[in-house]
Amino acid sequence: MQPTTPKPAQNRDRRPDHGADPGPARSPAPTQAWQRVLEEIERFPREIRDLPVGTSITPTAMRAELAAYDFREPLPLPRAVDELVHLLRERSVHVTHPRYFGLFNPSVREAGVLGDTLTALFNPQLAAWSHAPAVNEIERLTLARLAGVLGFDPATCAAHFTSGGAEANLTGVLVALADRFPEATEDGLAAVAGRPTFYVSREAHHSFAKIARMTGLGDGGLREVRVGKDLRLDPRALDRAMAADAREGRRPFLVVATAGTTGAGAIDPIEEIATVAAAHGAWLHVDAAWGGAAALSPRLRPALAGIERSDSVTWDAHKWLSVPMGAGMFFCRHPEAPTHAFGTATTYMPDGSRGALDPYASTVQWSRRATGLKVFLSLAELGLDGYRELIEHQAEMGDRLRALLGESGWQVVNDTPLPLVCSTHPALETGRRSQVGALVAEVQRRNRVWVSKVVLNSGRPVVRACITSFRTDEADLDVLVDELDHARETVT
Amino acid sequence: MQPTTPKPAQNRDRRPDHGADPGPARSPAPTQAWQRVLEEIERFPREIRDLPVGTSITPTAMRAELAAYDFREPLPLPRAVDELVHLLRERSVHVTHPRYFGLFNPSVREAGVLGDTLTALFNPQLAAWSHAPAVNEIERLTLARLAGVLGFDPATCAAHFTSGGAEANLTGVLVALADRFPEATEDGLAAVAGRPTFYVSREAHHSFAKIARMTGLGDGGLREVRVGKDLRLDPRALDRAMAADAREGRRPFLVVATAGTTGAGAIDPIEEIATVAAAHGAWLHVDAAWGGAAALSPRLRPALAGIERSDSVTWDAHKWLSVPMGAGMFFCRHPEAPTHAFGTATTYMPDGSRGALDPYASTVQWSRRATGLKVFLSLAELGLDGYRELIEHQAEMGDRLRALLGESGWQVVNDTPLPLVCSTHPALETGRRSQVGALVAEVQRRNRVWVSKVVLNSGRPVVRACITSFRTDEADLDVLVDELDHARETVT
Repeated sequence: MQPTTPKPAQNRDRRPDHGADPGPARSPAPTQAWQRVLEEIERFPREIRDLPVGTSITPTAMRAELAAYDFREPLPLPRAVDELVHLLRERSVHVTHPRYFGLFNPSVREAGVLGDTLTALFNPQLAAWSHAPAVNEIERLTLARLAGVLGFDPATCAAHFTSGGAEANLTGVLVALADRFPEATEDGLAAVAGRPTFYVSREAHHSFAKIARMTGLGDGGLREVRVGKDLRLDPRALDRAMAADAREGRRPFLVVATAGTTGAGAIDPIEEIATVAAAHGAWLHVDAAWGGAAALSPRLRPALAGIERSDSVTWDAHKWLSVPMGAGMFFCRHPEAPTHAFGTATTYMPDGSRGALDPYASTVQWSRRATGLKVFLSLAELGLDGYRELIEHQAEMGDRLRALLGESGWQVVNDTPLPLVCSTHPALETGRRSQVGALVAEVQRRNRVWVSKVVLNSGRPVVRACITSFRTDEADLDVLVDELDHARETVT
Repeated sequence: MQPTTPKPAQNRDRRPDHGADPGPARSPAPTQAWQRVLEEIERFPREIRDLPVGTSITPTAMRAELAAYDFREPLPLPRAVDELVHLLRERSVHVTHPRYFGLFNPSVREAGVLGDTLTALFNPQLAAWSHAPAVNEIERLTLARLAGVLGFDPATCAAHFTSGGAEANLTGVLVALADRFPEATEDGLAAVAGRPTFYVSREAHHSFAKIARMTGLGDGGLREVRVGKDLRLDPRALDRAMAADAREGRRPFLVVATAGTTGAGAIDPIEEIATVAAAHGAWLHVDAAWGGAAALSPRLRPALAGIERSDSVTWDAHKWLSVPMGAGMFFCRHPEAPTHAFGTATTYMPDGSRGALDPYASTVQWSRRATGLKVFLSLAELGLDGYRELIEHQAEMGDRLRALLGESGWQVVNDTPLPLVCSTHPALETGRRSQVGALVAEVQRRNRVWVSKVVLNSGRPVVRACITSFRTDEADLDVLVDELDHARETVT
């Protein structure tokens, strides 16, 4: 950190009008670089609604713009910050835009930005408990509170932050493997008699495809189970698949239910899946990376019924809890299970944790950034009730969008209480090929809203629009439907 | 983000003395919460040298201090920030303290804190190239420049940021597995004829023990090779172990050399290890999480000779490059290899990357926080030459510490050009049991410096002191040696 204007540490002047006191007691001027960042912190959220949502720059053009940075000559920090802010403004898809109806990337709240700034300044090390008692326990109590929201027992469940949902899902698979196949700890998966196999729906997140490879199970160790017309995993098909695999000598060890699919926001029937999983002796992991937040709303909570019966859960605070990336969360109902998967010890790690669990011995990562401060500050500022309002506002915007689309002749093709609306329009389906791709390209070209196309259950492409910003209001939805209608007229 | 005082976006007044212009063109006052954080940004680095380095609070006491947070009532953000800052100051081991001679946790520079703040504000999504063209390419050019420093070809090597060194090491193992055993992609590790086995030194980081389990190889798939008295991996022992394993039907597929062990900063003989690995057809990964930065110094670079022959490298910017956690980096000399390990495709991910590689299809993570902005800003501000000075200053402090300890009768027991000094004193070794543990406890109790004990090559414990802060100066070293001498007198 560069030294800044010296000033006394105590009795600083917090009056907003610095002009009245030019003496040494006034607040120090932030460095020029911080001044520029503060201006942006004030300005960007205020101006974003009027900015284009996206960018269509090509890799070649983007590289050309950056070619001058060769790190030979030092660049004054204020200038580097200025240039970076310009690039971030002009050359990004703005996921914090109120009219970004895209993937599960939220607008962020001031509390989250403050939390990440303090994390960077103090740089707490979360590998060992004793190195960061306050931050470890702040993370623990934040997670315990959210575990209670899921219906887990906060006093006994294990929980930790991850880099994101993919790491939390990986953790779920690894903990389930260690629990069901202790013989693999020493001798590897090859020592397991019968092929370990796990089950997801065809609409599940594809991080599980990577995870099947990363864990040594292989692509064939992952079974994709059919979904019904409602895009939810079919529990009877799951039961049949597990039984058939077991008869062939496979070892069905894990079922993943998804609470809020990426494509369509579908929530698998967790209760029924839990029963099937239990019948086959399998671990149940719920990937609620986005949908977990619905548990904060009494109105939406019934859609997650059964999640409290699961063995482990993925829930990302950097999705619907509107904190900056990455703040994945892993919850496990069995307090010892993560240590069985990750337990290790070394002589160079500090001891002195006196009974508290060292994160490095119970998680995928080792040295870890403090992830929980931004979640803690956001939760402290809003309270659970404030979060409920935020969630329910977005759910209402989803309902309103469905209604508006219907009034405009669009057909909503997915069924979920969550604010993710997939739709198409008869005019786009008259030819042999759907015009949805052309429509989405036209919408993105106009750059007033951002939507994407998605293929559900291997059908025809449809338009996907998800409310991911707590800033999205009725007027933004009107713009969205106008843009969809305008683009439809252009491409048909 | 909460709205703050409105102001015109253009022509803002950047004059330091706001008092001269009370009109609407002046800079807005930051929110109260930001004002508090800015005060801390100015104050903490200035005051830290006079703060205690650590804390010895117990889990029970820590939990009691936090028990009031139940998230029922909203807490005003400025108050929550105030309380959090207090906790961070009083209840942490301060890894950014100039007299924290601990694990590889650096002091952080202003550029890094600014980078993390902008990352949180704009919240760029790094899963797909097209969502964040500027940030993807800023990360790419930053990594390309550092790849060149390692001796890789920046134009062809693959590189990406990770959550930390453990994830980069995991990536190295997975990429090597996918490269050597393509049959496992579909059918899993059980389909490989002969047990895949990899090799590290006994002094290597224990993340590899977790990784052996996580990848399905099992504990027995990892071989720890003996080290010489210099604590460096013995290439002849490696050669013998690989040959013996191959004779028994195992499949030696990967060797990990460490450039800067956690215990003693030992740098394995990479050149000779590369020759052994090549003779056995094995992938060579270098874990240079800490030591990689030595490549920036012409004086230290020879110690890493051979790293340019490796297939992949782990190097953490959040260690010796002094950026906030977590900023791991993975470099791979074979541009297609990571895609073979992680390649996948979905219909819900945005296309439009037009030839640029989508991070989600070539890395462990999926949605990913922008990690590179803090590294980019730090590198832009300092330039490579500025970083060289930072690295060499710390290496000089290491040399000076070795000299000071010698003058005070301490015996340095490790041999490395890097600033990590392991030592003991004859007075601590007179009894049947070493008094090193008691000495370290006494040093930590006095709380003016932070050192730890470590057991090297399964011998007796020694005192470990690593220079990890660019702020550490001669006076800090004098305090360190005084404290060690004082504690020695106390415990003997």
